Amino acid sequence: MILSKFGQKMTQKSGILQLMDDLGTALTADKPINMLGGGNPAVIPAVNDIFQQAFEQLGSDFLNSAGNYSTPQGDKAFIEALADFLNRHYHWGVSAANIALTNGSQNAFFYLFNLFSGEYADGTNKKILLPLAPEYIGYADVHTQGQHFVASKPLIEDVDYQGQSGFYKYRVDFDRLVVDDSIGAICCSRPTNPTGNVLTDDEMYHLARLAEDNGIPFIVDNAYGMPFPNILFTNATLSWNPNMIMCLSLSKIGLPGLRTGIIVADEPVIHAVSALNAIVNLSPTRFGAAITTKLIKNDMLKTLSDRYIQPFYRQKADYAIALLKKALGDTPMKIHCPEGAIFPYELCPK
Amino acid sequence: MILSKFGQKMTQKSGILQLMDDLGTALTADKPINMLGGGNPAVIPAVNDIFQQAFEQLGSDFLNSAGNYSTPQGDKAFIEALADFLNRHYHWGVSAANIALTNGSQNAFFYLFNLFSGEYADGTNKKILLPLAPEYIGYADVHTQGQHFVASKPLIEDVDYQGQSGFYKYRVDFDRLVVDDSIGAICCSRPTNPTGNVLTDDEMYHLARLAEDNGIPFIVDNAYGMPFPNILFTNATLSWNPNMIMCLSLSKIGLPGLRTGIIVADEPVIHAVSALNAIVNLSPTRFGAAITTKLIKNDMLKTLSDRYIQPFYRQKADYAIALLKKALGDTPMKIHCPEGAIFPYELCPK
Repeated sequence: MILSKFGQKMTQKSGILQLMDDLGTALTADKPINMLGGGNPAVIPAVNDIFQQAFEQLGSDFLNSAGNYSTPQGDKAFIEALADFLNRHYHWGVSAANIALTNGSQNAFFYLFNLFSGEYADGTNKKILLPLAPEYIGYADVHTQGQHFVASKPLIEDVDYQGQSGFYKYRVDFDRLVVDDSIGAICCSRPTNPTGNVLTDDEMYHLARLAEDNGIPFIVDNAYGMPFPNILFTNATLSWNPNMIMCLSLSKIGLPGLRTGIIVADEPVIHAVSALNAIVNLSPTRFGAAITTKLIKNDMLKTLSDRYIQPFYRQKADYAIALLKKALGDTPMKIHCPEGAIFPYELCPK
Repeated sequence: MILSKFGQKMTQKSGILQLMDDLGTALTADKPINMLGGGNPAVIPAVNDIFQQAFEQLGSDFLNSAGNYSTPQGDKAFIEALADFLNRHYHWGVSAANIALTNGSQNAFFYLFNLFSGEYADGTNKKILLPLAPEYIGYADVHTQGQHFVASKPLIEDVDYQGQSGFYKYRVDFDRLVVDDSIGAICCSRPTNPTGNVLTDDEMYHLARLAEDNGIPFIVDNAYGMPFPNILFTNATLSWNPNMIMCLSLSKIGLPGLRTGIIVADEPVIHAVSALNAIVNLSPTRFGAAITTKLIKNDMLKTLSDRYIQPFYRQKADYAIALLKKALGDTPMKIHCPEGAIFPYELCPK
């Protein structure tokens, strides 16, 4: 089988293929396996009860969404409910024209990194600036033509966690950060998978300014962040401006199999994403939207996140730290301050 | 907003974006609209009843699939049931390793056309050969770098339809068809949207041979074909060989909102598609698979297609012809012989 250059590039053994294969194989294995990571969300009974109820209440509305394509922008009822939600809780002043759906967050990043890096008509070759590394493994291979990233080494600061020493935190080294014509967009995940780092409000403000001053978008991967699943253990504010491209997801609240990603951005970005949805997928899948529209309207997704999801993962993080400290004893060790994201949930007693 | 070359190319006003926008906007319009086409499947009550039952019977299995990622290849239970089904009815001798899922058929063609056309490492630039034009509008824009198609003019033959004259049928002009090093794959849809043409078994046999002799794959878009939705009004056989890439879909049986495409192919193709699924989507959406696995196992999808879906669209086609003939009277007119695919369903008395 002879493949095009695109084919050769995209079918190399990528980190994300290996990870997803391992994850899926482990989940369908015959013998019990301790899931120590990889991003599949945990089963949280109180949350699943609500999803099951929402599923059963759909009734014959099931076929209204399953039986029809949405527009390439995504399910209209969900998008309108989400715009209302974001204005009600965060006063962002967005409308339905600022929101598009994708088949999960990975799909969104495939679009965005290809839209804002690589070859440009003026002959330049632009990169995505990751202001703080390490970053999420799933970004690495998404460009259709090679890799187009530049990452910046962080400052490393010793910090305490819950009154204990032996922790550190990565911070953006703004002195080292160079934004010039070779940068097409700035991107960060917050919280970050794999370190559990959460960029501070101050760091976010500076990155947003830097992007705006250079006329490039600031892409924020909020898959683990507010308002849902809100797996955040520090004080952080959720803000948006038209130069930001905010990506959310229904995966980490517990619905990864429904592949629902959300992009909140300025209208031209939403048009570009819709155009890509049409070409790559006709329209995005809409069952995740159908199940959760009501839960956005009545704030239930936010309530579930605050009340069950966040405490669940926080407890797992603390338990993992206690286990590590006990097992390693006096061995010199430093742990990145667990500020958010998913921790090895099967490690812990249920 | 300055986009990359990829971005500029993919966000041009594409035919498929216009079509999907029109379709979605019409479906959510406040006033009643006669849907005269575009590919959204009709509501067929007997079919919807079965889907609704399958939905309700899912019960708590809903969260087994919604709550977990599948592997990048797709939902394991569905893939195994489909391999059994294809062997049971068509003796293809396939295994689960020959099947991958995608987020709908369009997603499959985005992958396949980029895998098998465009720039190659040896410096050549290959195209997809469409042996019979006109072809489906959704193909035109899927390549990440320009258009890479070569189409061949058909022979036009006068035929009768149900004893009436005034019909024609497109046939592949094999004398005109040139396959050389500039062709990366041969592709046809069967039935064809928009003409309703169905390539004969003989034509399919010759195209398959031509592909095999040239060491390139033969891609068949079977979204309207056998075994489901089986919107075929002629005698046609469904065959497969390891050099064929057969694409099926759950959209035209009535579940387009669930975005479930199916690729049956040789193992290296399935590996390539899985690798693309991981990078573009992490894993394909799996709710369509969850709803229909049982209906594949008990042959219900095939039964629904044979008993309800095929006669429904056949009747619509015949009604559309009768209306045209009546309205246009003696005006000279020729109609392509309606051999399959979806016809303007809202045109007809319910």
